[in-house]
Amino acid sequence: MSDLLQQAVAGVTVPDPSLRPLAQARLDSLTKPQGSLGRLEEMAALLFRLQGGVLPVQVDPVRCLVMAGDHGVAGPDGPGVSLFPQAVTRQMVQNFVNGGAGVNVLCRSAGVALQVVDIGCAGGEFPPHPTLVQRKVAPGTANFLDGPAMTRAQCQRALEVGIELAQEAAAAGVRTLCLGEMGIGNTTAASALFAAFLGLDPAGVVGPGTGLSAYGIEKKIDVVRQALACHADVLRAGEPLGILAALGGLEIAGMAGLVLGGAASGMLVVVDGFIATAAYVAAQAFQPLVREYAIFAHASAEPGHQAIMQCIGGAPLLHLGMRLGEGTGAVLCCQVLRAAAAVINEMATFESAGVSGASG
Amino acid sequence: MSDLLQQAVAGVTVPDPSLRPLAQARLDSLTKPQGSLGRLEEMAALLFRLQGGVLPVQVDPVRCLVMAGDHGVAGPDGPGVSLFPQAVTRQMVQNFVNGGAGVNVLCRSAGVALQVVDIGCAGGEFPPHPTLVQRKVAPGTANFLDGPAMTRAQCQRALEVGIELAQEAAAAGVRTLCLGEMGIGNTTAASALFAAFLGLDPAGVVGPGTGLSAYGIEKKIDVVRQALACHADVLRAGEPLGILAALGGLEIAGMAGLVLGGAASGMLVVVDGFIATAAYVAAQAFQPLVREYAIFAHASAEPGHQAIMQCIGGAPLLHLGMRLGEGTGAVLCCQVLRAAAAVINEMATFESAGVSGASG
Repeated sequence: MSDLLQQAVAGVTVPDPSLRPLAQARLDSLTKPQGSLGRLEEMAALLFRLQGGVLPVQVDPVRCLVMAGDHGVAGPDGPGVSLFPQAVTRQMVQNFVNGGAGVNVLCRSAGVALQVVDIGCAGGEFPPHPTLVQRKVAPGTANFLDGPAMTRAQCQRALEVGIELAQEAAAAGVRTLCLGEMGIGNTTAASALFAAFLGLDPAGVVGPGTGLSAYGIEKKIDVVRQALACHADVLRAGEPLGILAALGGLEIAGMAGLVLGGAASGMLVVVDGFIATAAYVAAQAFQPLVREYAIFAHASAEPGHQAIMQCIGGAPLLHLGMRLGEGTGAVLCCQVLRAAAAVINEMATFESAGVSGASG
Repeated sequence: MSDLLQQAVAGVTVPDPSLRPLAQARLDSLTKPQGSLGRLEEMAALLFRLQGGVLPVQVDPVRCLVMAGDHGVAGPDGPGVSLFPQAVTRQMVQNFVNGGAGVNVLCRSAGVALQVVDIGCAGGEFPPHPTLVQRKVAPGTANFLDGPAMTRAQCQRALEVGIELAQEAAAAGVRTLCLGEMGIGNTTAASALFAAFLGLDPAGVVGPGTGLSAYGIEKKIDVVRQALACHADVLRAGEPLGILAALGGLEIAGMAGLVLGGAASGMLVVVDGFIATAAYVAAQAFQPLVREYAIFAHASAEPGHQAIMQCIGGAPLLHLGMRLGEGTGAVLCCQVLRAAAAVINEMATFESAGVSGASG
């Protein structure tokens, strides 16, 4: 591993455990029945712990990074794993830059800043734009049925790009990172990563993605099984970088870097849906303590997501049947985080408000 | 029924059904896989239909009305159904006015205007305050184990207060009403209403409320059974006003009035949790078409809420384990509604963005 990657992995620490009872005591002093704000209280306690037990806790500034990359398995010579042609990755990056995509309107609605990162789109550089960050590691991955999707050097560089962008965000005062992505074919790569890192059966994690038929899903399961067989040696070796390079994507490795770099910088990392969870799972293989800094924004409508969440002990906050990716669920989730912060920061205590407590 | 109540009931109409396919066509033209924004799309289509198919759809202004009232069954001579003394209703109204309660901080976090309504608190009038609306119908209900909780005249007046406040909101340009409440003992009244209106077994709807033990819950189930037995004649007669008067609360009748008046004015009505759902169920007994205008903000942690939602075919938007009431879940839900509006209003189409569509 490179120095930067090693430093990020080593830099993730356990938040001070003594802050847990302090957070609970604060929450229980507020004018509400104990625990009655449910997961808002859980989120408030997490913010309190990550921010050293200092009130007010802060969710903002929030930055959403949408990492875009292409996948050889979805290319013109690939087996066909998506309803959409590979060109859509590039077209959607242009849509992000122009402000018309789902994540754009949700960012505007929620007051969240957006960065779009070309970490691996097929084709050349995009015209410069203030929203666009050019960090292309390669013009897409190779088809993982023919060999590793990325070289180890490419995969490491993509992880470093994520770490660097997390560090830049931290230096700019960002408190909360939202993971987003775009990449035609990336539910296939994500499914392969879930199977490889978590030992799940491909049939239990592969879903329709952007809308495959039952036949298309069967074919996609078969593609994932082939990829796992093709890289059986790498899987047996069990080294995270090797597995991620063999099966992942540049945008997935970039997001894994965001998780590691975000956690190492003490930021809250909001994991979006299916693909972002694959990046989280890869990051967790490098450093299990990222768990302390991550929340799962929403339960993806991609059917395998529930089994994956159970496997990693994650409890998504929102259940809205979303499956767009781009960071849309993560951005929406920030509104819940802000509400949680407002609760612990601003609610009156029983004592200050002169409200009688519970009996018994 | 009074003229005002009759007019509100008669004034609820079916939104133009031809707008449904138009909404779907608009949503399917946007740059995302079809249906991939899940319930945001459902909410966007609802706003589109309620607002006559005109873009942009509007969620704001939002107004949250917190109706406060006391319950004889929770009074000093009652059987004991809450961990908190009845005085807490009044203390919490003061907390709302002072800005320190859960609903206050969530309203500030979400940019939602708050009105607190004394529709039935025990004791006299509160000192005037800009946030407080004085519409006291009676200083609390009677103990429903000794007779009807309200006279028919009181219940009708409380419904009218809700209708009037909905009309005032509509006249002020409000687009979205959030239902909130405060009333020590009101999960008991709400449980009795669910049993009466929906035919559910009290054991399946009664829960811990603010935190009762298993023993306390058994006692509360018994209280609800006694109330149902005491008012068996009224239940057999099946008249909504009679049932609501016998078992309800002033704040619950007020919220039922908000549902009827809000729907009659074409506003979106956001139903909070357990108690607000009881008000919705009462309103639905007067006019089933309120269903077209109501959304269920969140799945309450009160265990009976799920069975109730199944019974009425409701699908709560948020699942955050909240059980505070006050309108907290409804206010939080408005952020999701705004995101839904942004999607249908602002997203680029495949055509305008030059993005390729799906094959097959």
